[in-house]
Amino acid sequence: MQEERPWESLRDQIKNNEADEVKLFLESQESSDLIGAVGHLTEDERAKMLTLLTPEDAAELIEDIPWVQALRSIKDIEPESAAAILSEMTSDDQADFLLEMKGEDAEAILEEMDDSDVKNLRNLIRYDPETAGGLMVTEFLAFEESETVESLVDNLRQNALQYKKYHLQYIYMVSGGKFGGVLSMRDLLLSNPKTSLNEIAITNALVVNDQASLEDLIKFFDVHNYYGVPVVDDDQALIGVVLREDIREAQSEQMNTEHLETQGIIGGEELRTMPILLRARRRLSWLSVNILLNIAAASIIAIYQDTLSAVIALAVFLPIISDMSGCSGNQAVAVSLRELSLGVVRPFEMARVWLQEVSVGLINGAVLGLLIGVAAYLWQGNAYLGLVVGGALMINTVVAVSLGGTIPLFLKKMNVDPALASGPILTTVTDMFGFFLALTFAGMMLSNL
Amino acid sequence: MQEERPWESLRDQIKNNEADEVKLFLESQESSDLIGAVGHLTEDERAKMLTLLTPEDAAELIEDIPWVQALRSIKDIEPESAAAILSEMTSDDQADFLLEMKGEDAEAILEEMDDSDVKNLRNLIRYDPETAGGLMVTEFLAFEESETVESLVDNLRQNALQYKKYHLQYIYMVSGGKFGGVLSMRDLLLSNPKTSLNEIAITNALVVNDQASLEDLIKFFDVHNYYGVPVVDDDQALIGVVLREDIREAQSEQMNTEHLETQGIIGGEELRTMPILLRARRRLSWLSVNILLNIAAASIIAIYQDTLSAVIALAVFLPIISDMSGCSGNQAVAVSLRELSLGVVRPFEMARVWLQEVSVGLINGAVLGLLIGVAAYLWQGNAYLGLVVGGALMINTVVAVSLGGTIPLFLKKMNVDPALASGPILTTVTDMFGFFLALTFAGMMLSNL
Repeated sequence: MQEERPWESLRDQIKNNEADEVKLFLESQESSDLIGAVGHLTEDERAKMLTLLTPEDAAELIEDIPWVQALRSIKDIEPESAAAILSEMTSDDQADFLLEMKGEDAEAILEEMDDSDVKNLRNLIRYDPETAGGLMVTEFLAFEESETVESLVDNLRQNALQYKKYHLQYIYMVSGGKFGGVLSMRDLLLSNPKTSLNEIAITNALVVNDQASLEDLIKFFDVHNYYGVPVVDDDQALIGVVLREDIREAQSEQMNTEHLETQGIIGGEELRTMPILLRARRRLSWLSVNILLNIAAASIIAIYQDTLSAVIALAVFLPIISDMSGCSGNQAVAVSLRELSLGVVRPFEMARVWLQEVSVGLINGAVLGLLIGVAAYLWQGNAYLGLVVGGALMINTVVAVSLGGTIPLFLKKMNVDPALASGPILTTVTDMFGFFLALTFAGMMLSNL
Repeated sequence: MQEERPWESLRDQIKNNEADEVKLFLESQESSDLIGAVGHLTEDERAKMLTLLTPEDAAELIEDIPWVQALRSIKDIEPESAAAILSEMTSDDQADFLLEMKGEDAEAILEEMDDSDVKNLRNLIRYDPETAGGLMVTEFLAFEESETVESLVDNLRQNALQYKKYHLQYIYMVSGGKFGGVLSMRDLLLSNPKTSLNEIAITNALVVNDQASLEDLIKFFDVHNYYGVPVVDDDQALIGVVLREDIREAQSEQMNTEHLETQGIIGGEELRTMPILLRARRRLSWLSVNILLNIAAASIIAIYQDTLSAVIALAVFLPIISDMSGCSGNQAVAVSLRELSLGVVRPFEMARVWLQEVSVGLINGAVLGLLIGVAAYLWQGNAYLGLVVGGALMINTVVAVSLGGTIPLFLKKMNVDPALASGPILTTVTDMFGFFLALTFAGMMLSNL
């Protein structure tokens, strides 16, 4: 039976330097329990735990926990230990860590690593992490075209242990270093051992350039069902492989970041294990912009203060109109962001999106307007109040969905991140409009209210 | 140079039954342009286009466009055409379509398909789509343990064409139908042809039961870097393979659905090509619940109407307090949903989450309270008004993040979908509290305002 708070034992084991117990404990945990247990440790405890494990086990653990925790842990330990752990990882992961560190910290770790790894890494970290060069692994096998199936198989036999880290779904054929073709395991299996590699290689295989963007790669793997794609530089030399799995992961992170941004969590991720001041500061950076926009919107009410004094009941409905318009608008924003990411809509198609939103806005606006109008009438016994608030909500719903549908497209067209900015812009404008509508209508019917 | 509206040509080609032109057009489009072009067709045009293509091309197209469009298209065409297209897909995709259709429609298609496929499919569609049985593909190769590497290779040679649809990263070994082990291509390549399969098979390979849930499978592939995992039934017979790629896709869809739900788009997906009434009805189902909650919250203002009449300036700040509390609370909700999905927090850890939120809430509440208090003072020249609105916002920010952080955990514990319900519950309670605080404080200081 799993203890409810397994990290308590882990804590003691770490405190008492019980390396074997720590290893056993981690192996006994299911993946999700592991993440939970490790997440409960302080940063010091996590760092200490890493040094208690063998570099191989530590690397495995690092790959399982959330990125922000992994990065923090690597930064917290001595360069020598960090280097030992990173050496157990594939080159793309090594590069990911080094890129996120300050130059001198990264240097300190590089100095502790094997020279052969270091040369390769220095090249890798020059790439933008969202290009093929920054996403590729450099652990791949390549053989000259003149070799035979037999010599390839012998090579695999002799180096079985060393090739453990390597992905062997495809082996590549090169011609003097330049990419020549792809050799599938199946073709190798079915061929006569004396066959030379260039007779069975798939020579018209697709490759990508090291500058290919993450977007290009996402599209590539959407179309092609390959396990990975070879990466070549401008001289057509084979320099790495981009794995489909890694692109899927990057795409998943993109989706997650976009969602968090629409909710006002900027910087791509927040875990509650991060320092309090950091969390507060990042949330506040978005909240403070919002409060200024809110004050601007609410100033409309201030302008119409006299009308409000005369029809105090209206003050009950202003927050309702504001909130409901925001809800309707945000539904439209969500659909636009989704359609943009799927590629079913293009940023220039604002007119078409507007038409599709207006139709829904009119229907829903009518229903919501009716609901709130009836509520107002039932409460105050005044049909004119019902007309005012109902009419204001109905019109503002149409405004909200129109803006909600089109703002993300407009921002995308302007190369501004639509996930972060759409919400605040939408709610500010619809608030202003909603308050304006309600108070103006009320002003027009003052005698009847 | 790509035309800006390529679908216009496509429309004409479809109208004029120009099958070859349609095929050429689709091949010429980049994946994203393709999705956009197809998305602009009416449902009738899409259905007609499918019948103009060969079943093989149609199946490829179907796999590229968004699911809701693909399903609609398959439903719209004659059973005979649908059967021909489905027959080009792997069994898991076939099952996906059939499961989403009414019994009689699915039957009509099944009757048009090959008997061998149908028997298999009838078994597949009995599975819950979110279990291993519902996610697996049944196109895999298995060989008896007594066979040799040589006979296996001969078999592959003879059946090369037929095995095109099959994934061959791993071939499986069975013993009288029961799962025996996994044969990796590499081991086959390195072995002597006369070796019998049971000498090289990995016999302690992991398998999953056909009832394993999507959650189990997600955890499995988080831990194990395999391409796929064999599926066995309760008798240990090998019945299929779950591919890592498919689990990643399912996980991605889960994330997307969760995000759309937090924005009030229920039913997992909305594309603007769906019928207007359907879109309006689904959005309205969420909006109508929200408006009732909003009316309930705003009734607090109605109760304190007299205080409001005395301090009409307050009406300007009520929407600000409501909106800003909602923003702060939704940040906390987003972090909780994220941490729950990552597994770093468990539903029972509400106390810990509350502490982590309160700390941030106090800091941000103090800053926001100060900002709005100063704004109120600058506007009305009355420090007490500043105290009232500032104090109300500060306290309500703490309330909002406390609720925002813990409500998702509580709902998850109660087995209620936290993505859909957290937002509305949060905003309703924080609105009520915020209005209450502001109006009560104002009531206490009436003489000074």
